Amino acid sequence: MAAAPRRRVRRGEPIPVWRQIEIDLTFEIRTGFFGPGDRLPSESELAKAYGVHRHTVRVALARLADEGLVVARQGKGVFVARRPVEYAVTRESKWSEFEQRLAARPDGKLLRSSRRTATAELAALLAIAPGSELLVLESLRRAGPGVSAYCYHVFEHARFAGIDEAFRRLRSYTPALAELGHPEFFRTRTWIDGRLPRADEARALAVASDTPVMVMSYVDAGRDGAPILFGSAVVPAGRLRFRVDSP
Amino acid sequence: MAAAPRRRVRRGEPIPVWRQIEIDLTFEIRTGFFGPGDRLPSESELAKAYGVHRHTVRVALARLADEGLVVARQGKGVFVARRPVEYAVTRESKWSEFEQRLAARPDGKLLRSSRRTATAELAALLAIAPGSELLVLESLRRAGPGVSAYCYHVFEHARFAGIDEAFRRLRSYTPALAELGHPEFFRTRTWIDGRLPRADEARALAVASDTPVMVMSYVDAGRDGAPILFGSAVVPAGRLRFRVDSP
Repeated sequence: MAAAPRRRVRRGEPIPVWRQIEIDLTFEIRTGFFGPGDRLPSESELAKAYGVHRHTVRVALARLADEGLVVARQGKGVFVARRPVEYAVTRESKWSEFEQRLAARPDGKLLRSSRRTATAELAALLAIAPGSELLVLESLRRAGPGVSAYCYHVFEHARFAGIDEAFRRLRSYTPALAELGHPEFFRTRTWIDGRLPRADEARALAVASDTPVMVMSYVDAGRDGAPILFGSAVVPAGRLRFRVDSP
Repeated sequence: MAAAPRRRVRRGEPIPVWRQIEIDLTFEIRTGFFGPGDRLPSESELAKAYGVHRHTVRVALARLADEGLVVARQGKGVFVARRPVEYAVTRESKWSEFEQRLAARPDGKLLRSSRRTATAELAALLAIAPGSELLVLESLRRAGPGVSAYCYHVFEHARFAGIDEAFRRLRSYTPALAELGHPEFFRTRTWIDGRLPRADEARALAVASDTPVMVMSYVDAGRDGAPILFGSAVVPAGRLRFRVDSP
């Protein structure tokens, strides 16, 4: 026989009880059991359901509010906020366009560039010889209201020398690649994974270093199918959802 | 001028230095700067690059080995392991098929079922009336060698009464839905996000409660496009990558 939804915490876990409640409510909100505009159960109802003090619930709710998942309305209760921005993964996906939907103009910021040697794996993705010199650009991009993406873009150095200077000046890869003779590029393959942020990423994205990030890696190619770049975009989990349509 | 790759830790962060190194090397491995079969720099090279004691590097490398990212070969060094399994997101995506590629037969385990009331959001996804009664099944599925998925499946109770008993018996949704008169279903929309696991999820998936998980939510529909279920699959980050092809 189907039971009522279970609200439960475990003592003695490495993460504190208030954070377990925060994670539990995050699950209920993100899964849609509480939708945008819905009122959450009251502090005392939640305290009773979880078997904890009201103060513990209050800490969890404050954290959810900090993360933008809920909004407290004085005297009315705590309500689920609007859903985060969606990033649709398609052949046309480009951070530049996503950014321009949100901002008046491109505002990518080049953080640093470095050299690497192509491993067999990266060489295969870029269709170049293993051992070729790579140019790796790190940049900070807009990825939604108040949300940033920490991006890595990997190019064959021989073919794309100067892309760092062009990106620094133009603040977007679309015009920078056009200047280098690649007016068109398309997403061919995307991988999505998660992890904890590197210290540099956490600082640039303004998130705690124990907050999970999502990593979207991808290969962009020209109209002829020849790979142009391998990219990897790091965004704080929960601030943006990736969407794939398969109608 | 492009510089060499930077290896650096920050003191005074909420996460310890050895874990920062682990995260940093995880980034380098997963991004492909070290590919499968490549040898990592030696313990003393890494200790020098990060400015830490060799013991700190050793702890980070041991953790990477525990997670299956690297393999130490006696006297030869530490090598990058094979890539994790990929889960391709397509119209044909089904955990049942993914599971059967990996296991001889379906082995989904029903953990519990509960009732919920459809919020406006879930009602819209399932094309039912808000306030309808929902049946929520929680199950544990195989999701790769040594990796499990904690799955939530949400059905309209009125149309799918008995799906819990059918799944418990058949250990897979494909035959269970066929019994209920839905021999075919297809993925129509997928969302991917990340968070920390709920206590129940961490326990069932055998991961630490401070290890990020990926959440793939989706709507499956019949050939006529009518929604059948809303699902949400939780997998430990790094154990499986979602892949989207857009050729």
